[in-house]
Amino acid sequence: MLKNSRTHLIEWGECDPAGIVYYPRYFQMFDHSTTMLISRASGLTKYQLFKVYDAAGYPMVDTQAKFSIPTRFGDTVTIESEFTRIGTSSFDVIHRLLKDGKTAVEATEKRVWIGRDPADPDKIKSKPIPDNLAKLFREG
Amino acid sequence: MLKNSRTHLIEWGECDPAGIVYYPRYFQMFDHSTTMLISRASGLTKYQLFKVYDAAGYPMVDTQAKFSIPTRFGDTVTIESEFTRIGTSSFDVIHRLLKDGKTAVEATEKRVWIGRDPADPDKIKSKPIPDNLAKLFREG
Amino acid sequence: MLKNSRTHLIEWGECDPAGIVYYPRYFQMFDHSTTMLISRASGLTKYQLFKVYDAAGYPMVDTQAKFSIPTRFGDTVTIESEFTRIGTSSFDVIHRLLKDGKTAVEATEKRVWIGRDPADPDKIKSKPIPDNLAKLFREG
Amino acid sequence: MLKNSRTHLIEWGECDPAGIVYYPRYFQMFDHSTTMLISRASGLTKYQLFKVYDAAGYPMVDTQAKFSIPTRFGDTVTIESEFTRIGTSSFDVIHRLLKDGKTAVEATEKRVWIGRDPADPDKIKSKPIPDNLAKLFREG
Repeated sequence: MLKNSRTHLIEWGECDPAGIVYYPRYFQMFDHSTTMLISRASGLTKYQLFKVYDAAGYPMVDTQAKFSIPTRFGDTVTIESEFTRIGTSSFDVIHRLLKDGKTAVEATEKRVWIGRDPADPDKIKSKPIPDNLAKLFREG
Repeated sequence: MLKNSRTHLIEWGECDPAGIVYYPRYFQMFDHSTTMLISRASGLTKYQLFKVYDAAGYPMVDTQAKFSIPTRFGDTVTIESEFTRIGTSSFDVIHRLLKDGKTAVEATEKRVWIGRDPADPDKIKSKPIPDNLAKLFREG
Repeated sequence: MLKNSRTHLIEWGECDPAGIVYYPRYFQMFDHSTTMLISRASGLTKYQLFKVYDAAGYPMVDTQAKFSIPTRFGDTVTIESEFTRIGTSSFDVIHRLLKDGKTAVEATEKRVWIGRDPADPDKIKSKPIPDNLAKLFREG
Repeated sequence: MLKNSRTHLIEWGECDPAGIVYYPRYFQMFDHSTTMLISRASGLTKYQLFKVYDAAGYPMVDTQAKFSIPTRFGDTVTIESEFTRIGTSSFDVIHRLLKDGKTAVEATEKRVWIGRDPADPDKIKSKPIPDNLAKLFREG
């Protein structure tokens, strides 16, 4: 399925008093990596994607992360992301954050495709992933 | 084993354009909840804990979270946290974030107790959880 | 004019590798303090405020902050906030963050009251602060 | 004096429920821009800089920001940063964040150069900016 890779320079503001990345910040990196993966498939920014597909997001349902090697400000890391399952209205992604070629953090995630609830625009509800997008996610 | 509960008013700045909590922020809430749980056991702030026990932190090794109900700014939620395992130099915690009495997010975590590496103060390494603390964690 | 005060326990995740609060986090504290100040006036959460007054927020126009004393995880600080000017569609607030009774950070801010643009719900535009709210802001 | 420019793709996680960047996140962008400006001068990452110059950081003393045009997820912005004053142990920087060639946010900052206090490594204190660095900051 589709893969994407990006590099990231760890920022001072992402680190805690131990001098290493504060782990919730990794989830923000992975969230952006999933957006970059979908952007690679669609050729659209997340804002454009919402307009074109009448979507409201792809929130997290379940995620797991394993932290093996600490990273710190000034480190340039690589984040590899790949779809692992494309369902009707949900999908799975795996991320590997590499430092010097070694896996520092690995995370899996399950997300759901959502739109605004027509009955109450304040609410969100799951909807099928558009067919042409699902195809692009699968083919890579 | 020891439990703790705290309430939290969801802030505007914790929410994303979908109007709900941006999921990496939940991990920041849970991280603080683990600190509050340890503080309840020790009677110390995290800063004092480091001084008294010559510790450098209790970083995350593995975490999993399941998101069932969205929460948004203005919601007051309850976060219940409990030790589920106390090992020699690691421990497990479970967190349940409740909205209107229902579990909105549930997370498990495995952390390791660390100190500065005497051979290189720039590095951190695991060390045994002090006996009296481990006892307090277990007894509740 | 109306004042409010709240205490805050500095979190590990708000601090940087120097062991002190990462300064952008102070702005998040002050943003929440302004919300608490408005909530004190209105008796509403920010979410309820939006519903009752058909508002979309009160974004920052201009802010200045002066950092005098560092604060760190485990410190309990007090944040005092006060309206200093209530205009037609904008208002000013001053915040003082105190540690051990001394001003550690002081910030001023000018914000504008906004709603959704009826012509394009994707856009926001300024609108007058509702009269009864402005009165509550002024009277304290 | 020395200038630097970088581009940044606004992330979903940097935006709030109004769909625009949550203003404290701009300060994180500017903080990283100052680090990139210093890195351009020194040829070092912030971590390396600390080692080479025995420094502990360059915390903020005073900052002011003016927000003119909102930016949102999917926008690619340019951040231009420039030294405006190099003192003995402090320096000033100005940042301009541009969207479609227009200034969306402008910020000024005064920072101080610090090291660990030899008398108490838990404390930080200002120290002179190293001569060769100050020269690189000035010359551009």
